[in-house]
Amino acid sequence: MNGTELWGIDNLPYGVASTADGGAQVVTRLGDDVIELATLAKADSVRKWARIFDNSSLNPFLTQGRSSWSAAREWLQAILRDDERKGLVAAATKPLADVTLHLPVQIADYVDFYASEQHATNVGSIFRPDGAALTPNWKHLPIGYHGRSGTVVVSGTDVVRPVGQRKGKDDPEPLFGPSVRLDIEAEVGFIVGGETEVGTRVSVDEAGEHLFGVALFNDWSARDIQAWEYVPLGPFLGKSFASTLSPWITPMEALKAAKLPLPAQDPKPLDYLRGDDLFGLDLELEVRLNDTVVSRPPYKKMYWSPTQMLAHLTVNGASLRDGDLFASGTVSGDARDQRGSLLELAWSGKEPVRLDDGTERSFLEDGDIVTITATAPAPDGGRLALGEVSGRIIPSV
Amino acid sequence: MNGTELWGIDNLPYGVASTADGGAQVVTRLGDDVIELATLAKADSVRKWARIFDNSSLNPFLTQGRSSWSAAREWLQAILRDDERKGLVAAATKPLADVTLHLPVQIADYVDFYASEQHATNVGSIFRPDGAALTPNWKHLPIGYHGRSGTVVVSGTDVVRPVGQRKGKDDPEPLFGPSVRLDIEAEVGFIVGGETEVGTRVSVDEAGEHLFGVALFNDWSARDIQAWEYVPLGPFLGKSFASTLSPWITPMEALKAAKLPLPAQDPKPLDYLRGDDLFGLDLELEVRLNDTVVSRPPYKKMYWSPTQMLAHLTVNGASLRDGDLFASGTVSGDARDQRGSLLELAWSGKEPVRLDDGTERSFLEDGDIVTITATAPAPDGGRLALGEVSGRIIPSV
Repeated sequence: MNGTELWGIDNLPYGVASTADGGAQVVTRLGDDVIELATLAKADSVRKWARIFDNSSLNPFLTQGRSSWSAAREWLQAILRDDERKGLVAAATKPLADVTLHLPVQIADYVDFYASEQHATNVGSIFRPDGAALTPNWKHLPIGYHGRSGTVVVSGTDVVRPVGQRKGKDDPEPLFGPSVRLDIEAEVGFIVGGETEVGTRVSVDEAGEHLFGVALFNDWSARDIQAWEYVPLGPFLGKSFASTLSPWITPMEALKAAKLPLPAQDPKPLDYLRGDDLFGLDLELEVRLNDTVVSRPPYKKMYWSPTQMLAHLTVNGASLRDGDLFASGTVSGDARDQRGSLLELAWSGKEPVRLDDGTERSFLEDGDIVTITATAPAPDGGRLALGEVSGRIIPSV
Repeated sequence: MNGTELWGIDNLPYGVASTADGGAQVVTRLGDDVIELATLAKADSVRKWARIFDNSSLNPFLTQGRSSWSAAREWLQAILRDDERKGLVAAATKPLADVTLHLPVQIADYVDFYASEQHATNVGSIFRPDGAALTPNWKHLPIGYHGRSGTVVVSGTDVVRPVGQRKGKDDPEPLFGPSVRLDIEAEVGFIVGGETEVGTRVSVDEAGEHLFGVALFNDWSARDIQAWEYVPLGPFLGKSFASTLSPWITPMEALKAAKLPLPAQDPKPLDYLRGDDLFGLDLELEVRLNDTVVSRPPYKKMYWSPTQMLAHLTVNGASLRDGDLFASGTVSGDARDQRGSLLELAWSGKEPVRLDDGTERSFLEDGDIVTITATAPAPDGGRLALGEVSGRIIPSV
């Protein structure tokens, strides 16, 4: 499939881009071009969109809510189908190669979930070999924790290998230095719009009103730092050095055909995690390490619905802000080549992954480039692409 | 001591206030008055401060850095001592009772540490009675995790009792409902200014350049929700419903006389946690539950220096943003009446706390009001007050 099929009129993700001679504004992608939406809206005399899209983040758009998100997409699809307005579109179009893509959202709070049963089972087996792989709470609630929103970076940003403390079983004292178990986590992020008040909650069936869109996400993880620090308060420096977000946010409306039923949930979750709007997403991820595809994680196997994650996140009265990001946790399928982290792919170093250049990896080396891509069924048939998330490891400083 | 002594010219904390007929601006407190700093700077023809203080948060001031923070304080102290400018000050002064105090900082990322050895020992003994009280990492690194910055609220905000899942040892299935073990954590928060780049770190001796000031902090905690959710990824909904910050940020310069040596650190921490600028703070906290003083936690016993916490937070390359908040974790001293949480004061319900009205508490009841205050040695002798942090529990909705 070529770019035009994967990035067609039924895709239209949102991003933020600038050119050498112009400020940043909200853009969409069509084939291998971007369309500047503030420029287009101004030319089309739609003042509301001209104002909202003339910003260096999607946040002013996120705060508009579901009906405005739909209206903007309708306007955009209509103008792209309108022969009479072709000139306006052409004037707002630039080759993708000529623009710089920025972090599209000013991230408010970032929460990372742990919603793949296969991933949680694999990690539990590796980290806690003497206990049950899944903790007793796992099937009762979508486990999550807060990450560092200030270090969410856009795809293409180099990742400096983190430095920190680690202590293996046989080390008498903690060691200090660059992480020697630097890993990826192939995840799907969800961008939230529409503020709520502290002390209120969002039900499963209301969650869709706040789910703006989806973006691929790499939650880089230093396993050695994480293993030493995470008891009892959870991951901290093993994660907070960088998390990479795709520059393209795919609106939920573009993923209508990708929705499918959740896997069976047994035991049945508590009432607040039930509702009519429960779904999985048929996203097929692909993880490339340098030139080798090392994994193809299927999102459709994820245990918890995004609407359940959002309902859980707010059940205690926690408020939502425009630009909140929650991620699914590592996406891992049943097969070995469907695992979304090197920790699982190489089984904690016991079964290194062989790359096409003949080298092997248990964890990342300096210079390695990891790229995650994905496709989904498109509303009008065929498939659409999600924006890629890519990063290169550079040495510790 | 009266208000004038505790809130004198060597205190001068920063806050944000509005009046019924005026927008919010940065203010300071002198006795029982506030002084509007944008108004004052404008009258004194200091354009820089007029611009920076004419904002609804301290963030534009935080980004200026240490030398500007010092210069602003010098300007303010000079004008307050200058008989010729008395009229300007009077014109910018309003009774505290006539203004509304707001959350003074737009919080970027919020990290909570766990820096009291006595608190960690108490909690470990209660939650993990069969293991060592302190986890093996505790004396090697300041344990911390990210909290939810969007639910940091200003003192005086009612706290809705959170709802969620809990599961006691004897419950066959998780229960759902309002928390029945709602608690406080008396903490000290540190406000950060001066951005750093992702991939760089801040040493112990550089940390002071980024430490703007201190504020009392109550990290409300639902112990039952927390106990069921926190393995393996740490506290989440048991904390994220609300955390209350004082409206007054006390600048580090006002706390010069409060600095004292740290308790001995054994084992000696790794190099990156060493430096010349290590200190404790002689802050005497007081926790009131309704009309009863239930605890007087001494901050001076805290194990880790704020500069060590900041160096640890960034050692992996995590960047800082203006408005980052990190808190100390619960402040608990050696004595029973120095414990900073009800979990510890009532020893998980085994030794309820008796209030002056004859009732007892193991955890908070609806309608309870918790107020944390503190004093510290002032630079010119005597003591100064930190801004109080107060909140009332209202029933779940």
